[in-house]
Amino acid sequence: MSYAAPIADMRFALEACADLWRLRDRYPDLDADTLAAILDGAGQLASETLAPINRSGDRAGVTLKDDIVTAAPGFREAYEAFKAGGWQDLAADPAYGGQGLPRAVALAVMETVHSANMSFGLLPMLTLAAIEAIETHGAPDQKQLYLEKLISGAWSGTMNLTEPQAGSDLGALTTKATPQADGSYAITGQKIFITWGEHDLAPNIIHLVLARIEGAPTGSKGISMFIVPKFRDEDGSRNAVRCIGLEEKMGIHASPTCTMAYEGATGWLIGEENRGLAAMFTMMNAARLNVGMEGVAVAEAAYQKALAYARERKQGGALIIEHPDVRRMLMTMRAKIQAARAICYATAVAADAGDKAREDLLTPIAKAWSTDLGVEAAGLGVQIHGGMGYVEQGGAAQFYRDARIAPIYEGTNGIQAIDLYSRKLLGDRGEAMRVLIEEARAIAGSGHPKLSAAIDGLAEATDYMLGASQEDALAGAHAYLQLAGDVVGGMLLVKGAARDANPDQAGSLRFYARTVLARAPSRLAEIRIGAEVLGDFDT
Amino acid sequence: MSYAAPIADMRFALEACADLWRLRDRYPDLDADTLAAILDGAGQLASETLAPINRSGDRAGVTLKDDIVTAAPGFREAYEAFKAGGWQDLAADPAYGGQGLPRAVALAVMETVHSANMSFGLLPMLTLAAIEAIETHGAPDQKQLYLEKLISGAWSGTMNLTEPQAGSDLGALTTKATPQADGSYAITGQKIFITWGEHDLAPNIIHLVLARIEGAPTGSKGISMFIVPKFRDEDGSRNAVRCIGLEEKMGIHASPTCTMAYEGATGWLIGEENRGLAAMFTMMNAARLNVGMEGVAVAEAAYQKALAYARERKQGGALIIEHPDVRRMLMTMRAKIQAARAICYATAVAADAGDKAREDLLTPIAKAWSTDLGVEAAGLGVQIHGGMGYVEQGGAAQFYRDARIAPIYEGTNGIQAIDLYSRKLLGDRGEAMRVLIEEARAIAGSGHPKLSAAIDGLAEATDYMLGASQEDALAGAHAYLQLAGDVVGGMLLVKGAARDANPDQAGSLRFYARTVLARAPSRLAEIRIGAEVLGDFDT
Repeated sequence: MSYAAPIADMRFALEACADLWRLRDRYPDLDADTLAAILDGAGQLASETLAPINRSGDRAGVTLKDDIVTAAPGFREAYEAFKAGGWQDLAADPAYGGQGLPRAVALAVMETVHSANMSFGLLPMLTLAAIEAIETHGAPDQKQLYLEKLISGAWSGTMNLTEPQAGSDLGALTTKATPQADGSYAITGQKIFITWGEHDLAPNIIHLVLARIEGAPTGSKGISMFIVPKFRDEDGSRNAVRCIGLEEKMGIHASPTCTMAYEGATGWLIGEENRGLAAMFTMMNAARLNVGMEGVAVAEAAYQKALAYARERKQGGALIIEHPDVRRMLMTMRAKIQAARAICYATAVAADAGDKAREDLLTPIAKAWSTDLGVEAAGLGVQIHGGMGYVEQGGAAQFYRDARIAPIYEGTNGIQAIDLYSRKLLGDRGEAMRVLIEEARAIAGSGHPKLSAAIDGLAEATDYMLGASQEDALAGAHAYLQLAGDVVGGMLLVKGAARDANPDQAGSLRFYARTVLARAPSRLAEIRIGAEVLGDFDT
Repeated sequence: MSYAAPIADMRFALEACADLWRLRDRYPDLDADTLAAILDGAGQLASETLAPINRSGDRAGVTLKDDIVTAAPGFREAYEAFKAGGWQDLAADPAYGGQGLPRAVALAVMETVHSANMSFGLLPMLTLAAIEAIETHGAPDQKQLYLEKLISGAWSGTMNLTEPQAGSDLGALTTKATPQADGSYAITGQKIFITWGEHDLAPNIIHLVLARIEGAPTGSKGISMFIVPKFRDEDGSRNAVRCIGLEEKMGIHASPTCTMAYEGATGWLIGEENRGLAAMFTMMNAARLNVGMEGVAVAEAAYQKALAYARERKQGGALIIEHPDVRRMLMTMRAKIQAARAICYATAVAADAGDKAREDLLTPIAKAWSTDLGVEAAGLGVQIHGGMGYVEQGGAAQFYRDARIAPIYEGTNGIQAIDLYSRKLLGDRGEAMRVLIEEARAIAGSGHPKLSAAIDGLAEATDYMLGASQEDALAGAHAYLQLAGDVVGGMLLVKGAARDANPDQAGSLRFYARTVLARAPSRLAEIRIGAEVLGDFDT
């Protein structure tokens, strides 16, 4: 079974649900034909080049020997094709070789890449993050030095945040930056969980590293961001950064997860001193949205595989797709995938439109709701395959193992829920959420009672979150994010259905309303649970 | 982090929730001290002997060479200790060396085994199934020949149902049985997914095999059950059955999943000709309940590991257990584990009490609800560990991979839902369910409004299921099983709390009521969804 980009579903989500064409004035060169050509091209790369090495990459994994990480067979050729097609960053600045397309379109392209091969997709995804960091915070000479190489995919990029003792708590990091006479810094410390931190697919790797300049304040206010190229810019000599270990992970085996040792490596400050965390946060929106897209993508891949299996596997004389419970599982996948896809694309369209409040509000929802779905859908895919789902040969198992990372990295989904509450909701006293709710009400009108009821629930929940103590609000934050995702997904599906009377999409919406939206009252109960009910764990 | 049997929780579930002591008249030799000694002894074996080889077994796996399957290092010694302790079947007939204890007690022992090492636990679990088949359907000489050896654990047993072309559809199986002059049959065919089908831990393996006697009717009415010992009873010579392949699975790596080739192997009919499927079904209750217990067990292991991690891992200066969202996840695990444990134990107590209607009704619920929880809890365990949950070294990943098989084997959870509806509910026109609902109402009284509301929902759903078309009922069968499990779990927790005012258990109940039971209205909506909403998949 092979992956095929679901172009019709993608276009429905992009155009009808996420309202891509509201960007027409900002992107006058983009038209429907161009969009179609882009998605077709990306889909072809995904199905013909990336999907065929997904399972082999899972089995082969990556190897580390003498500081060198060797990618799985076929990945070099695939990356060459990816580069040659100019797929690295369609949204990048044309001044540096980008195409200046909407991020929403670049994101849709990345969806197909992630669906076909999630391990592979992480390489351009991290490069994207580096590009964004340098575009936003880099000095002109830094842009000159790196952007073109990164945007073309000639070089790749990484993000170096986590340290062994610090986890998600970046304020606790200890990597040290010592000023040198030439204006550079000597970077010393260890970073863990560095995705594609070392590999043999590109001749240079540009590391974005958080470190503490000697004498800087403790905690999160003393962290700066540095550019540490694997090969020094001055003379092309090897920098003192190397991969000293690879994690043995449950999935995404073809993506090297590196422990990186910085041993007095030459680094260059990017952005302001001690403002590294803020710089990192500005690039996090895009990274988090991309991870949300991964969730949708792996769900789509699992769905396609399960659907194909259900259409060919017989049980008791009938195809298993005739069993209502199998159809229930497939429909759950289909409807929620389409909702999550619309949420992710809509977040990107908000960013493209310069609607920062909406982008900020939707980002944690897009990340957490979609990656939870990735895990759920991959699990349903396994279940539909029965015993064949549990054996690796069946292929469904890999999606289940791969999907599980997405709710964890780029800020766990618990952190997304905290972000939605404490930064996004408290940050503007619920204003952006109220605007969203009003828009949702307008879209629901009087013809979508399930959506209207869920919106009422979200409005009530929003008032509760704003009024509750922090402890109580945090106890309900996870359920609040889920309800918000349920509502936004429903609102976008309704919006899409109003514009494009596609019977498949109408079917998804109907199912979604009867299952996901019907759950709003119990979500509300969970939101209001209160910290006290979370139990006595003697600590 | 090591596993410790949760003796207090187990005893609360067994005695207060599942009402073990209603069996006092049937089992006069069992008293509280004996029960305590048994659980302590089993817990000690689990934590000291079985848990230490769980991760090493996952890494080492099993190997097949020249028809011989070699277990992972340490498994032989562990199995010797298991046998020496007399743990194989505490409930077995004393006439054959068993101890004649309630199944509920034997099941609790198996919980600790499965928690410590799910791969290991499958070996005695399959032997149990073989014992039950022979106890129920064997001729006196067959009992004489096999029971003592199996009950002592000297020999192990297997169940051989699935064939490559047949999956869950046993009526389609083609393994052939040809009558021989000496009254035996020559068995020829291939069976797949045979758990512990071949290994080096016991000198003989007794295969229970479904096959079709030549000339038998087609379909499920022409299937007979045979005993095929690895070494022939007559002369101890090697029988013509061998393992020709091992599955590469996502988890339970230390448990060999064998493809077995029967090449004219000597087999002996057990039970009546062409009644093999019925014989298999009578032993399925116990096997399904044991799989449900596995779900609870792996959830418990994941919970213990996550709780220990949350108590020692710091983030932002505080232990992560202080984060409300981490507590929410832990509490979800704790409350639902306790409910599922009570459901499984109560099913066994019903069997011990001879309450066949209740046993039959609860079995699919115990299997599906508990194994869904196993997956959910293992996923939450991974999430609590963050990045460390995704790397294999952390140990949480193994539970996630291991847990995923339980909703699939011994009848997928979709099949359990069909069973609950079509055999159990339609079988007596809802009588057993009505009895259960009345009991639940009596337990809820007027002091548990969330439980009462959920019971009302279940009653309404039961009427709906009995009145709906088969297609519509099957569309809602999964949600119906879930609601039934929610209610039975809640009823048993309330029953337990009324008998034993343990504050920890009261906390679990409170959380359970506010989350699981609060979901009843949306479950009801899902039950009533109707086949039509399940979508158009062109087939």
